[in-house]
Amino acid sequence: MSKLVECIPNVSEGKRKNIIEDLRDEILSVKEIKLLDYSSDFNHNRSVFTFVGSPEKVLEAVYKLAAKSLELIDLNKHKGEHPRMGAIDVIPFVPIKDVTMNECVLLAIGLGRRLGENLNLPVYLYEKAASAPHRKNLANIRRGEFEGLNEKMKNSEWKPDFGPEKPHPTGGATVVGARVPLIAFNVNLNTKDVSIAKMIAKTIREKDGGFSKVKALGLKLKDKDLTQVSMNLTNYKVTPVYKVFDKIGELAKENNIEIVESELIGLISIDAISQIVSHYLKLPDFKPDRILEYKIFNF
Amino acid sequence: MSKLVECIPNVSEGKRKNIIEDLRDEILSVKEIKLLDYSSDFNHNRSVFTFVGSPEKVLEAVYKLAAKSLELIDLNKHKGEHPRMGAIDVIPFVPIKDVTMNECVLLAIGLGRRLGENLNLPVYLYEKAASAPHRKNLANIRRGEFEGLNEKMKNSEWKPDFGPEKPHPTGGATVVGARVPLIAFNVNLNTKDVSIAKMIAKTIREKDGGFSKVKALGLKLKDKDLTQVSMNLTNYKVTPVYKVFDKIGELAKENNIEIVESELIGLISIDAISQIVSHYLKLPDFKPDRILEYKIFNF
Repeated sequence: MSKLVECIPNVSEGKRKNIIEDLRDEILSVKEIKLLDYSSDFNHNRSVFTFVGSPEKVLEAVYKLAAKSLELIDLNKHKGEHPRMGAIDVIPFVPIKDVTMNECVLLAIGLGRRLGENLNLPVYLYEKAASAPHRKNLANIRRGEFEGLNEKMKNSEWKPDFGPEKPHPTGGATVVGARVPLIAFNVNLNTKDVSIAKMIAKTIREKDGGFSKVKALGLKLKDKDLTQVSMNLTNYKVTPVYKVFDKIGELAKENNIEIVESELIGLISIDAISQIVSHYLKLPDFKPDRILEYKIFNF
Repeated sequence: MSKLVECIPNVSEGKRKNIIEDLRDEILSVKEIKLLDYSSDFNHNRSVFTFVGSPEKVLEAVYKLAAKSLELIDLNKHKGEHPRMGAIDVIPFVPIKDVTMNECVLLAIGLGRRLGENLNLPVYLYEKAASAPHRKNLANIRRGEFEGLNEKMKNSEWKPDFGPEKPHPTGGATVVGARVPLIAFNVNLNTKDVSIAKMIAKTIREKDGGFSKVKALGLKLKDKDLTQVSMNLTNYKVTPVYKVFDKIGELAKENNIEIVESELIGLISIDAISQIVSHYLKLPDFKPDRILEYKIFNF
C-alpha cells in the first residue's frame, strides 16, 4: 500500500441489524479496503463506518455503500436524535498517507458528481471541498434536515453542487467533503459544579473567541462526581491537543480544581501523537519517522 | 508479517567501506529481512546494523553476518576507541511484535550454540539471556577486551556459554543476548557549568542510587553554550522517559536553570511513545491500538 485515504460515512440506520450488516458487506465486498471500525447508535438511529484504502478503492467502496443505502433506507420512515438529511448522510474523506488534502477534495468532487448523475441524489460539498464559505460547516448545510430539504433547495443559496435540485424521494441529500482527521477529546474535572466546566469550554472554543478549530461543551458526568469539558479538535495542526489540555489545566487551577483524567474517543493519527510528544519532551524535530514501527512498516 | 524481532549487531569495522558493504550485503541477501538502518563510526572503528523480520529470518541473516565478519575482520589488526572483544562484537535480539522476551532468549541461545559449534566462536550470553547474574551486564563481559580474552577465559567465572574455551584467533568472542528496546535520550541545559549536568546525571542514574535501568552522564556540548545529561534508558517499562525528563526539569529548576531541548538518538517504540502520551495527557488507558496507523497496519 502506498497512497491511503480514510473515509468515514455516516448512514441513517442504527437499529435494524440486518440492514446495517448488508451495508457493511457492501464495503467488505471491495477486497482491498480495510474496515477499521463500525458502530451503530440506537438512539441516534445512525451508523458510522471507518475504512481506509487507496483513493480508487475507497471511492469504489463508498459509492457501493451509497447505492445500497438508497436502496435499503427510506428517510420518510426514519426517526432518531441525531440531525440528518440523507439516507447516506455525510461522507468525509481524510488524507492519511502520501495523499494531499487537494486529492481528497478531488475525490469528494468525483464522488459527488457520480452520486448526482448516476443515483439522482443531490449532493452538497463541505469543509475543504465546499464551493462557498457558507457551505463549509456541516451543521449549516444540514439545518432543516430531511423534512425541510424541499423548501431549503428552493433558496438559490442552497442549490446542490451536484444532482437534481430537489430531494431524492427516499434518500434526501448527501453531504460529501474532505477534512483533516478530527480528534474527539474529553477532559474530566474534580468538581460537581458544571458551571466551571461550561466556563472553561466557553473560554477555549472558537465560537466564543477561544482557540481556532476547537468545539467544546461543558457537561455533568452522570454516575461520577465529576464534570467534563467535551471537545472536537477539527484541525490539530492549527490547535494541537496539548494546547487545549494545558489551557484547561491552567483554568482549572485558577478555580482551585484540577484535571482528573482525559478520554480520547476513537482513533488519533500518529502525526498528532508525535506533536504531543515533541511538545512535552521538548523534542523540536520529533516526527513519526523516529518511531520504530513507523519505520518498519513505512506507512 | 506477524512475529517481528529486531536485531542490532555491532561489528568491529567502521573504516573500510568495501568490507562494511560486504557485511551489509550478507544481511540484504535474506530477502524477507528489512534493514532499517546502518551506521559506521570511524573513530570507534565500528558499525551497527539494525534490522527486523521473523525470528527465523533474523536468525538466518545474523548468522550469515557473523560468518562473514569472521572471514573479513582480523581483530589482531583492529584499533578503535570503542571497547570490543569480537569481530562481531555484540548481538542483541529485541522483541517487537507478537514475540515474547522468552522467545528472544531462545533465539539468543540458538544462535549462540550455532556460532560456537559451527564457527568455533566462543559465545557469552548477556542481559535477559545471561546464564549468571555477573554476566547480565555487557561491560562486565567485555572488560579486558580482545587483548585480555585469553587470560580472562582461564577464569572459570568467564568460561563461555558456547564454543571453545579459548578465543577465536582472529574473531575473539561474541556476546549474544535479548533485551527490551533501549532508548538513547539526551536533555540539554541552559548552563555552561558542567558540574550541574554531572550532579543531575549522578542523581538520576541507577549506579548512584537513582532510577532503575537508567545510565546517565553529564557533559559539555562543544560549539554550544550548553551542557547535557546524556542517557540510556535500558528498560522504559521500569523507568519511563517522562519520569527522568520531569525529574531533570525539577533538578534544573532547583539550580535556577532550565531544560532547553531534548534529543532522541535512533528510534523509539510506539509503546514507549504511548506511555509518554498517556502520562502527560492523563489518558490512563492510552495504548498503541488507539493510533490510527497502528490499527491500519496491524503491526
